[in-house]
Amino acid sequence: MAYFDQISKVKYEGRQSDNPYAFKFYNPEEKIGGKTMEETLRYGVAYWHTFTGDGGDPFGAGTAKRPWDHLKGMDLAKARVEAAFEFFEKMDVPFFCFHDVDISPEGDTLRETNKNLDNIVAMVKDYMKDSKTKLLWNTANNFTNPRWTHGAGTATNADVYAYAAGKIKKGLEVGKELGSENYVFWGGREGYESLLNTNMKLEQQNLANLYHMAKDYANEIGFDAQFLIEPKPKEPTTHQYDFDVATAMAFLREYDLQDHFKFNIEANHATLAGHTFEHELRVAREAGMLGSVDANQGDLLLGWDTDEFPTDLYATTLAMYEILKNGGLGRGGLNFDAKVRRGSFDTEDLFHAHIAGMDAFAVGLRVAQKMIDDNFFENIVKDRYQTFETGIGKDIVDGKTSLAALEAHALDIKDIDLKSGQVEKIKAKMNQYLLNI
Amino acid sequence: MAYFDQISKVKYEGRQSDNPYAFKFYNPEEKIGGKTMEETLRYGVAYWHTFTGDGGDPFGAGTAKRPWDHLKGMDLAKARVEAAFEFFEKMDVPFFCFHDVDISPEGDTLRETNKNLDNIVAMVKDYMKDSKTKLLWNTANNFTNPRWTHGAGTATNADVYAYAAGKIKKGLEVGKELGSENYVFWGGREGYESLLNTNMKLEQQNLANLYHMAKDYANEIGFDAQFLIEPKPKEPTTHQYDFDVATAMAFLREYDLQDHFKFNIEANHATLAGHTFEHELRVAREAGMLGSVDANQGDLLLGWDTDEFPTDLYATTLAMYEILKNGGLGRGGLNFDAKVRRGSFDTEDLFHAHIAGMDAFAVGLRVAQKMIDDNFFENIVKDRYQTFETGIGKDIVDGKTSLAALEAHALDIKDIDLKSGQVEKIKAKMNQYLLNI
Amino acid sequence: MAYFDQISKVKYEGRQSDNPYAFKFYNPEEKIGGKTMEETLRYGVAYWHTFTGDGGDPFGAGTAKRPWDHLKGMDLAKARVEAAFEFFEKMDVPFFCFHDVDISPEGDTLRETNKNLDNIVAMVKDYMKDSKTKLLWNTANNFTNPRWTHGAGTATNADVYAYAAGKIKKGLEVGKELGSENYVFWGGREGYESLLNTNMKLEQQNLANLYHMAKDYANEIGFDAQFLIEPKPKEPTTHQYDFDVATAMAFLREYDLQDHFKFNIEANHATLAGHTFEHELRVAREAGMLGSVDANQGDLLLGWDTDEFPTDLYATTLAMYEILKNGGLGRGGLNFDAKVRRGSFDTEDLFHAHIAGMDAFAVGLRVAQKMIDDNFFENIVKDRYQTFETGIGKDIVDGKTSLAALEAHALDIKDIDLKSGQVEKIKAKMNQYLLNI
Amino acid sequence: MAYFDQISKVKYEGRQSDNPYAFKFYNPEEKIGGKTMEETLRYGVAYWHTFTGDGGDPFGAGTAKRPWDHLKGMDLAKARVEAAFEFFEKMDVPFFCFHDVDISPEGDTLRETNKNLDNIVAMVKDYMKDSKTKLLWNTANNFTNPRWTHGAGTATNADVYAYAAGKIKKGLEVGKELGSENYVFWGGREGYESLLNTNMKLEQQNLANLYHMAKDYANEIGFDAQFLIEPKPKEPTTHQYDFDVATAMAFLREYDLQDHFKFNIEANHATLAGHTFEHELRVAREAGMLGSVDANQGDLLLGWDTDEFPTDLYATTLAMYEILKNGGLGRGGLNFDAKVRRGSFDTEDLFHAHIAGMDAFAVGLRVAQKMIDDNFFENIVKDRYQTFETGIGKDIVDGKTSLAALEAHALDIKDIDLKSGQVEKIKAKMNQYLLNI
Repeated sequence: MAYFDQISKVKYEGRQSDNPYAFKFYNPEEKIGGKTMEETLRYGVAYWHTFTGDGGDPFGAGTAKRPWDHLKGMDLAKARVEAAFEFFEKMDVPFFCFHDVDISPEGDTLRETNKNLDNIVAMVKDYMKDSKTKLLWNTANNFTNPRWTHGAGTATNADVYAYAAGKIKKGLEVGKELGSENYVFWGGREGYESLLNTNMKLEQQNLANLYHMAKDYANEIGFDAQFLIEPKPKEPTTHQYDFDVATAMAFLREYDLQDHFKFNIEANHATLAGHTFEHELRVAREAGMLGSVDANQGDLLLGWDTDEFPTDLYATTLAMYEILKNGGLGRGGLNFDAKVRRGSFDTEDLFHAHIAGMDAFAVGLRVAQKMIDDNFFENIVKDRYQTFETGIGKDIVDGKTSLAALEAHALDIKDIDLKSGQVEKIKAKMNQYLLNI
Repeated sequence: MAYFDQISKVKYEGRQSDNPYAFKFYNPEEKIGGKTMEETLRYGVAYWHTFTGDGGDPFGAGTAKRPWDHLKGMDLAKARVEAAFEFFEKMDVPFFCFHDVDISPEGDTLRETNKNLDNIVAMVKDYMKDSKTKLLWNTANNFTNPRWTHGAGTATNADVYAYAAGKIKKGLEVGKELGSENYVFWGGREGYESLLNTNMKLEQQNLANLYHMAKDYANEIGFDAQFLIEPKPKEPTTHQYDFDVATAMAFLREYDLQDHFKFNIEANHATLAGHTFEHELRVAREAGMLGSVDANQGDLLLGWDTDEFPTDLYATTLAMYEILKNGGLGRGGLNFDAKVRRGSFDTEDLFHAHIAGMDAFAVGLRVAQKMIDDNFFENIVKDRYQTFETGIGKDIVDGKTSLAALEAHALDIKDIDLKSGQVEKIKAKMNQYLLNI
Repeated sequence: MAYFDQISKVKYEGRQSDNPYAFKFYNPEEKIGGKTMEETLRYGVAYWHTFTGDGGDPFGAGTAKRPWDHLKGMDLAKARVEAAFEFFEKMDVPFFCFHDVDISPEGDTLRETNKNLDNIVAMVKDYMKDSKTKLLWNTANNFTNPRWTHGAGTATNADVYAYAAGKIKKGLEVGKELGSENYVFWGGREGYESLLNTNMKLEQQNLANLYHMAKDYANEIGFDAQFLIEPKPKEPTTHQYDFDVATAMAFLREYDLQDHFKFNIEANHATLAGHTFEHELRVAREAGMLGSVDANQGDLLLGWDTDEFPTDLYATTLAMYEILKNGGLGRGGLNFDAKVRRGSFDTEDLFHAHIAGMDAFAVGLRVAQKMIDDNFFENIVKDRYQTFETGIGKDIVDGKTSLAALEAHALDIKDIDLKSGQVEKIKAKMNQYLLNI
Repeated sequence: MAYFDQISKVKYEGRQSDNPYAFKFYNPEEKIGGKTMEETLRYGVAYWHTFTGDGGDPFGAGTAKRPWDHLKGMDLAKARVEAAFEFFEKMDVPFFCFHDVDISPEGDTLRETNKNLDNIVAMVKDYMKDSKTKLLWNTANNFTNPRWTHGAGTATNADVYAYAAGKIKKGLEVGKELGSENYVFWGGREGYESLLNTNMKLEQQNLANLYHMAKDYANEIGFDAQFLIEPKPKEPTTHQYDFDVATAMAFLREYDLQDHFKFNIEANHATLAGHTFEHELRVAREAGMLGSVDANQGDLLLGWDTDEFPTDLYATTLAMYEILKNGGLGRGGLNFDAKVRRGSFDTEDLFHAHIAGMDAFAVGLRVAQKMIDDNFFENIVKDRYQTFETGIGKDIVDGKTSLAALEAHALDIKDIDLKSGQVEKIKAKMNQYLLNI
C-alpha cells in the first residue's frame, strides 16, 4: 500500500524549477569538493516528528492529518514503518533516526515494551534490506513517560534508574541489530526543576556511571557505534545538565568519559543556550568531538524549542563551513530534527519541509565549499594572526617564554599596529558569495 | 581631609531603626553559626564602581558628583585613595578590590604606567597600616584601552599579548606587596566579535599559556594568592570564552590548569549566561572551586550587565546557603561589584547602596543559617534520594552494577513509587523562614 | 463523596504555625486598610489548572494523580464539579473561573457541546446555591481544538469565525446564568505564525467586529459582566495581537471599543512581553482599565509561560500596591492562573500551592497597605516632582505655556538642582517594610 | 582639504565585481518597479555614528581612527562638516541625519549652545548648496547631558523640561533652515528606572503637552516636516514609554496627537521589543503611520542595541516588501543608524560598512519587487482568506451579522475545510526568489 500516492520521487531540477516537489539545489550525485552531495550531507529523517508527532502544542490538540490516523497500537506502528520507507525512498534520503517509542508502543512492563519493539525492529530490518536508507542513530526515549518526571539517569529513585538502564541496554541491542552508525543520549529530564530539592552531585555521578555501563555493554555485544551527547540547556526541565557543548565536555572530562563520546549538535539547542549554531559546532570541532547534527532552526524571538525546518542560508552556510573544516561528519549526518508548524498539517507539508531543509543545506554546502576553495576565511585569519608566526609571537604559541621576557618586550612599546577586524567587509563579501552561487 | 564629613561611621541599630545610615541586619560582631558575621561575609568594596566610575552609560555622560571631581592625574588618584580609606572605615568593611587602572592613571608606556602604580601602591600600603581593611583581590584591567580591542591574553597581535603579560606580572607583584588574598582574571576582551575572523584554538592555547606563566611567576616571587577566573558570557565582547563556570572548568581541565584556579562568581554574569546565581555557586562548590563572589544583581528583563547593588533577599539567601555549605568562602569574600544607578549620583548614595547590599546579605546569612540548623533542605533531599542508600540504589551509586543487572531488576516492574517534588510547599516554607527571622 | 478526605478546611494559624495546611498570613476576616482580606484579595481558583490539567508538557505525558482519573466523558465532568466545590470550601476561596471546555466535554457539533455544557452548568448552579464561592469570570476556549489553528476571532476561514462567535454567545449566556462578575477574552490563537501568509488588517477588523457583536449580545440578554481582554505576547502563537496592555489599548481605541473593556493582567504574560507585572498593572490603572488579575509568576530565565503559583513577595507587594492605589479590583479578583509543577503530581500539592499563593498575596497586601499608610512612595514621588506644583512647572502641567516661553526660561540657566533618584535607598527601605510586617 | 583621499567615488560595478569599494547591487539610476533605486531607497547617513562616534563601549575607550582626531571644539565640528560632505559625495547618498550635538559642541548655556549651532548650521547650509545630499531629519539630543538623567520631556524637574523645550524649539528652527524632510523624537530618557519613584501619568501628560507645543511652533514658523516618533523599549532607561509602535500609537491616540505623527522604525529597536523588524513596519503601515526607517540590525543573542550595519538579506527583503506595499517611504528614507564595530576602527571601514548596508537593501528591493510583481504573497493571502469574500464571510467583514446569526450558521457544522498555512513551502520559495535575482 502507498501512503503518499500523490507525490512521486523528488528529483533535482535545478534552481529555476517551479516544481514544488523538486530539489532546486540538492543534487545527490553532484560532486562538490571531491565528494557527492549525498556523501557529504548524509541527510536523515527524524522518525518522531515525521511519522509519530501530531502537531499538538501546550495550548492545542494535535492537528496533523495522516493516512494512518485511523489505526491504533501495533497496527499503527506497522503502518508508520511502511509509510516511513515509502517517504525515505521518495525523498531519497540515506538515513533515518528514531527513539524506541517512536516506532513501537510501550507496554505495561519493560518486558512487554521490548517485545513490541522486537516485532517492529524485525519489520524495519526487513524493509532496510530493500532500501538504501540506513540508521544514522537510535536512542531510548527516557523523558516522555511520567516515570521520568524526576530524571532517568539522574533519577531520584533507584527503580527509575534501573528502568532507564534497561531501556538503554535494549537500545544498544536494537542499534546493533539495525547497524546504527551512532547512539544518542539526550537528557531531557536529566537536570532539575529546582536546586532546592536536588542533589546535583549524586545525580551527575549516577549519570556518569550509567554512561560507563553503557559503553561497557556496547563493547560486550560488539556494537561499535559512535556515542553522542546531545546538549540542551532547558526545556522541558528548568535546567538540564548538558547545557551546551562546553558544559558537557567538562562533565565528560570530570568522569573520564571524554574518549567515548562526541556531540550531536542541534541548532535550536545552541541558540537556547545563548550561542550561535556555528559556535557549538566550532567548540566541538576544535576538541575533535563533532559527531553529528540535528539540523533545524529556532526562532530567536521565542524562548522555546520551535524545531523549525532549517531554511536560513546564513546558518546553513556557516554550519557547512565548520563541517567541511572538520573533514565532514564521519559517521554522523544531518538529521532533520524538525517538525512542520502546527498549521502545516497536510501530508504534503512533510515533503515541502524536507525539500526546504535539504535545499537549504545544499546551498550552504555549495557556498561554504566555494569559500574554502578561495581560502576566504583562511586568508583573513592567517593575515590577522601573522605576528604569532615568528619571533616573540612564536615563542608565545610554543610556550617558550615567561612574564618577565614578555614584560621586557612590552615595557617601552608605544604604538602597536593593531589591524581592523573588518567585520562589515567580511559580511558584505559573504553576501556576495551567497548570491553568486 | 575628609570627603564624607556629613556621614558618621555606620553602625548596627537593629531592624526597627529608621536611621538610613545604620545597619538593620548586619551586625559585624554578632555570631551566626559559630562565626561573626564579619568573618563569614567578608565584605569588600569595589574601587572602580565606588571611587573611579562616573555614572556614564552608552547614551549618556557621567553624572556622579564626587568631592574629588576637580582633580586630575596623580592628584586625582591620591585623593581617591584618601577617600577610599575614609569610606572603608565608615562602612566598616574588611576588604577592598581593584584593577590597576582604577587606582592609578595609565602612562604613555607600560614603564610609565608602572611608575604611577608604584607611587599609588606605596600610598595604599601606608594607609593599610592604619586600617583593618585588607585587599581581597587585585587584577589588571586588560580591557579598557583600545589596544585590547581584539583581546589581551587572546590577542590577535603578539605585542598586545606581551603587553598583557607585562601588566599581569606587575599585578602579581602589586598583589604580593599589598598582601592580596586572591588574584582575579576576568576576560572582558577574551572572546570574539565574529567567528568569521577568529582562530579560537590559537587564542585559547595562548590564554592557557599565559595562565601557566602567571602561576609560575607567582610561585617564583612567593605570591600565594588564590587565582580566580571570573566567568561572563557576553558584553563587552559578543561571546566571551569564560562563558560560565562549567565552560571555564572545561577550559581549565583541557589545559591542565584546574588545580591552580577557583572561581569568582558574579550574580549578574550568572543570569546573563542563563543560570541562576545559586546554580553557578553550586557548580563551583561541588567541584571544590568556589573561590569568591562578586555580590551584585542584574535585571532579568534587561540584557546587559546592570551591576546593581544586591537587594533581592531570595538571591542572597540562596547564595549564602551555598556559601555556608561550602564551609564559607575561605580566602574569598563578598565583593560589591555593583554601581549606584546613573540617577543616584550623590555621594550619599554610595553609602545607601552599600548599606542596602550589606544588610541584604546579612539577612541571607541569617535565614540560610537557620535553614541549615533545621536541616531544612537536607531533610528534603535525604528523603528524596533514600532509595540510593541501600540495595540496587547503593550499587548504582557505588558503580557496582551493570546494564544487564539493572535490566533484570526493571523488566517486570509495574508501579514505581515516585514521590512529589513539592516545589510549591518548599517555596512557601522558604517565605516563612524569610519572614520569621 | 469526598475527594480530599485527607485534608480539613484550611484556616489561619499565624506566621509561626508549622502546619502546612494552614494559612500563615492570609486571615480572611482580618481587616487591612478598612476591608477584610477576603474582600480585597477576592481570590479565585482556576478550574483548568486545578481540576482539568494533567501535568503534561511538550516532552512528557500527564503526571497528575487525581481521584477522578478513572472516569470519562460526562461522568468525569461531573466528578470534577463535585471535587471543585469541595476544594473551594476547604480552601475558603470566594471565586472560581473556567473556560467552557474545562467543565464539560466538547461534542461532535457545537449543538452537542452546548448540550453537554447546559447539563454541567445546571449542576454548577446547583452547587453554587450551597456555596459562598462565586464565578469571577468565565470564557470560551477558542484555542485548543484543531479548528482554531489559524485563529478564532481572527480566523482565516469564515466557518471557523462563526463557530467562535457561537461559542462566545453561549459563553455569555452561561456567564449570565451563573452570575459571573466578568467575561474574559484571551486570544491564544489571535495572532500569526508568519507575517508572510497573514492579512493582519482583515484579521484585526474581524476581531473588533466580534467584540462589538459580543457587547451587543450581552446587552441584549442583560448580562452586565465587565468584559476583560487578557494580553499575552506570544505562545502558543509566534506573535499574538494583544501583546501587552498598551498594544491592546491601541487596538481598542482604534475600533472604538475602549469603553467596553478592561484588562485581565497576568504576571507571567507581562514578563514574557518584557515588562514587570507592576508595569502592566500601572499602565492599566492609569487608564482606568485595571479589571482583574491572573495571579501567577514566571521564571525569567525561561522563555515560555510557566504559570507558577505566585510566591515572590516583591512581586505580590508591588502588585498589591497598584491594586490598592486603584481602589481595589472592583468586580475583578486574584485568580490563580497557576499550575503545580509537573513533578508536584499529588493532590496535596494543589493545597500546598494555593496556600503558598494566598499567603504570598496576603503578605503583599499587608506590606503594601503599610507603605501606603506611611505615604512611603507618595512622599518620594511628591518630593521628586515638586517643581511642577508652582510657577513654570505648573504652567507645563496645565498646558499653558509654549516652546518660546520655555526657551526664554531656559536660555541662560547654568545649574539645575537635579535630585538623586535614590533607588538603592528605596529598595533597602522596601526590604525593611517586608521584614518588619 | 580631503579626508578620504584614498577612496574614490563609489560606483555600481555589478555582482561579479571584486572591488570592495564598488556597489554590487545598488545601482542608483536603475529603475526597479518604475522608480530609480535612489528614489525608492532614499539612503541617509547618520552623522553621529559616522563622524562623531568614537567606538567606545561600557568597558572600553574609543578606538576610531579619524583624520580629524587632533582637533577640538568648533574646529573639530567644522572639520567633521567638511568630512561629512566629502563622504556623502563619495558614497553618493541623497540624505543625512543629525542630532544638534552631533554637529556642534554644547556651550555652558543653551544660549551659547545655540550660538555654536548657528555657526555650524550656516556652514552646513553652505555645503548643501553644492551637494545633492539633503537633510532627511534632524533632532535634539536630549539624552546625553547629565541634566537629562531623569528625563527631558518627562523630566522630574521643570527647569529640565523647559531646557528640553528650548532645544526642541531650536531644532525645529534648524530643521526649517536646512529644509529637513522630517523631525524625529526619540525618547532615550523618556521612561523610568524604577516605578517606585515615578509618576508615570504626570510624565506622560507633560510629554504630550510638549508634543502639542512642538507642533504648534512648527506651524507657527511654517516648518512642514513630518514629525516622527522613534520607539525603543529599553536602554538606556530600564523602560522607555515609546516601547514599540503599538504602545506609541496608544499614547498618541490618548493625547489626540495621532494625526501629527508617523513612526521612525528601527530594526534593532524592534527586536529589543520582542518583534521582528517587519512586524513593526506592518503595524505602522496598516495604520498609515510608516514614516521613515533607521536601517540597521541587532544581534538577537545579545540584549542591547548593537546598531550593526544591515546585512541580513531576509530582513532587508521583508522590510522592502512592507515599504513597497506602503507605496514607498514618502518623505522618509533609509537612514543607516548603524555604527562600525569597535574593532572596525579604520576610516575605510566606514565605506565598507555603508556599501554593505546599501547593497543589502538594494538586494532587498530587487527581491521584494520581484515577489510583488509575481503576486507571490498576495496570491497566498488571497487564497487563504477567500471565504471572507462572499456569503457569511462577507457579512462578517462588513459588520452586518450578529452572534445569533453566526451561531445558527455554526451549530451543526462538522467538518471545516481548514487549509494548511504552508509556511515551509513559503520559506523555500523565498530562498529561491533570493538566490534567483
